[in-house]
Amino acid sequence: MADLKSKFLNVYSVLKSELLEDPAFEFTDVSRQWVERMLDYNVPGGKLNRGLSVIDSYQLLQEGRELTEDEIFLASALGWCIEWLQAFFLVLDDIMDGSHTRRGQPCWFRLPKVGLIAANDGVLLRNHIPRILRKHFREKPYYVDLLDLFNEVEFQTASGQMIDLITTIEGEKDLSKYSLSIHRRIVQYKTAYYSFYLSVACALLMAGEELDKHIDVKNILVDMGVYFQVQDDYLDCFGDPETIGKIGTDIEDFKCSWLVVKALELCNEEQKKTLYENYGNPDPSKVAKVKALYKELDIQGVFSEYESKSYEKLTSSIEAHPSKAVQAVLKSFLGKIYKRHK
Amino acid sequence: MADLKSKFLNVYSVLKSELLEDPAFEFTDVSRQWVERMLDYNVPGGKLNRGLSVIDSYQLLQEGRELTEDEIFLASALGWCIEWLQAFFLVLDDIMDGSHTRRGQPCWFRLPKVGLIAANDGVLLRNHIPRILRKHFREKPYYVDLLDLFNEVEFQTASGQMIDLITTIEGEKDLSKYSLSIHRRIVQYKTAYYSFYLSVACALLMAGEELDKHIDVKNILVDMGVYFQVQDDYLDCFGDPETIGKIGTDIEDFKCSWLVVKALELCNEEQKKTLYENYGNPDPSKVAKVKALYKELDIQGVFSEYESKSYEKLTSSIEAHPSKAVQAVLKSFLGKIYKRHK
Ligand SMILES: [Mg+2]
Ligand SMILES: [Mg+2]
Ligand SMILES: [Mg+2]
Ligand SMILES: [Mg+2]
Ligand SMILES: [Mg+2]
Ligand SMILES: [Mg+2]
Repeated sequence: MADLKSKFLNVYSVLKSELLEDPAFEFTDVSRQWVERMLDYNVPGGKLNRGLSVIDSYQLLQEGRELTEDEIFLASALGWCIEWLQAFFLVLDDIMDGSHTRRGQPCWFRLPKVGLIAANDGVLLRNHIPRILRKHFREKPYYVDLLDLFNEVEFQTASGQMIDLITTIEGEKDLSKYSLSIHRRIVQYKTAYYSFYLSVACALLMAGEELDKHIDVKNILVDMGVYFQVQDDYLDCFGDPETIGKIGTDIEDFKCSWLVVKALELCNEEQKKTLYENYGNPDPSKVAKVKALYKELDIQGVFSEYESKSYEKLTSSIEAHPSKAVQAVLKSFLGKIYKRHK
Repeated sequence: MADLKSKFLNVYSVLKSELLEDPAFEFTDVSRQWVERMLDYNVPGGKLNRGLSVIDSYQLLQEGRELTEDEIFLASALGWCIEWLQAFFLVLDDIMDGSHTRRGQPCWFRLPKVGLIAANDGVLLRNHIPRILRKHFREKPYYVDLLDLFNEVEFQTASGQMIDLITTIEGEKDLSKYSLSIHRRIVQYKTAYYSFYLSVACALLMAGEELDKHIDVKNILVDMGVYFQVQDDYLDCFGDPETIGKIGTDIEDFKCSWLVVKALELCNEEQKKTLYENYGNPDPSKVAKVKALYKELDIQGVFSEYESKSYEKLTSSIEAHPSKAVQAVLKSFLGKIYKRHK
């Protein structure tokens, strides 16, 4: 596994070199250095789970047959396309959210020489995906399906980002806009397609499958993505900061979190008043009041129940799938996230 | 022709309605309204030359045969994809340049409720292109070529934008970075591919041609795009503000204009000093000194000569082309821009 990760990282270097010599553009020395620095700063520094999942999933779909070097390279290249897509979205998200740090370093747009040039860098990151696909997959029978897939998932992610942004417009903090249905919609579109479905869809295409015949796989992975984000919301408030590596600020930031949405659903009029008066404020005493209300409503218990129910439902959907290999892929995803603490 | 433009505008309404009912995303009422307003604000308000050129060019390639309604619709849809691409780049460019107005109204990101959400709206505009292509061209034999074409041209445009941005980084005003070769590179990539080549390439694909066989057409259109931008730089300083509809500020803005690049090439040491001391400053007396220097160096005469030479060269390249229909397309473009005053 350590070996696979180092192979995966190697493919990053190959793809980067190719992009820096792309014949569709005449680089100057300065612009080549700019792109190299921008890539190294933004693409490979995450956990790489999404990217690595393409190789894992493709391997499971081959039911034990050892992969050729060529297959590993191609699955890695698709994995990197997902990491590139994520980098594109994160660079722009940090600009829009006015964030300061990302992955333990200043956000790209915060660097003095970068600033809003970061917006165009985001676009470049996004443009690198079809460059990579064209170079390595152009002759594959599934080339056009790959292009369609990345286009559709990007469209869905940007649409989810849009409802997130317009639901939380600064200066219009209004809890009455938050509900379980809007939470689900934001999470499904903004996160689930690109974080869960996309890796498996890439592996399925490489394995010669048609995506139209795997709508059930898509639905299961989207549900898993939603469950994953609910965990994220839970850990933001109740997780151990040491373990998750940051101190959550969803309450302060007026986030449309699953916790506040559940609280709104379960509270009486008086508790509702407390929420309206204290949610979305940096004042620690107000944050404490919200947390106290979550305890009062036993949101932790409600979450535990949600967690077990989700697990049961996902497991039975997975077991209803006709292919053992596909089941293995889906179970592997579920196993990685069930009852996670970080 | 007025009829063709109204047909073209009609297609905008059709495409917009389709996008607002795209089954790949579950719109809320609020988000559907947001997208509609964003499209109406940013997409159809320009001169539409790029979009209309697809229909014109396709018509010329058919050598007089009347187009069917279906062909007009498809050529219009491709034309609108170019307008959508332009809108995407302009929305982001205005954010990065900190601009205030565009097409006689405030830039989209300047609207109080929009702000940096505009960055994501730009991404959505870009995502609409493959949605339109998939809906109307998926079954066409040239579908994958259309996807590749838009991807390549977008990559080239973003790359040109990058060298423009990093050559003119605020706070590092340094004329020694400016030269004819960097000017050409910026203009070729940032403008020429999407403004000149893309419309004709779309028309060629619709006509069943392979783009690999039309590298000469690409080169001619790219040269024409460069010539067009040199005119733009010239008119910014020497055009009639009444006619061009704005007062140029390239000198004030420290733009890498063809004029300053030519001046740098032709000046002696003393004149060079004048340029370094006065270029890129809002002070009207400094602007006047730069303009006086342009007169001293007879930049207007140099431009006239450039204009005739470009015309001659372009004409002889066009006439060397084996196909009369392709010649007609290229001559139509050249006729529209030669000796233009706006
Ligand atoms: Mg953020
Ligand atoms: Mg955000
Ligand atoms: Mg979170
Ligand atoms: Mg601008
Ligand atoms: Mg600009
Ligand atoms: Mg200009």
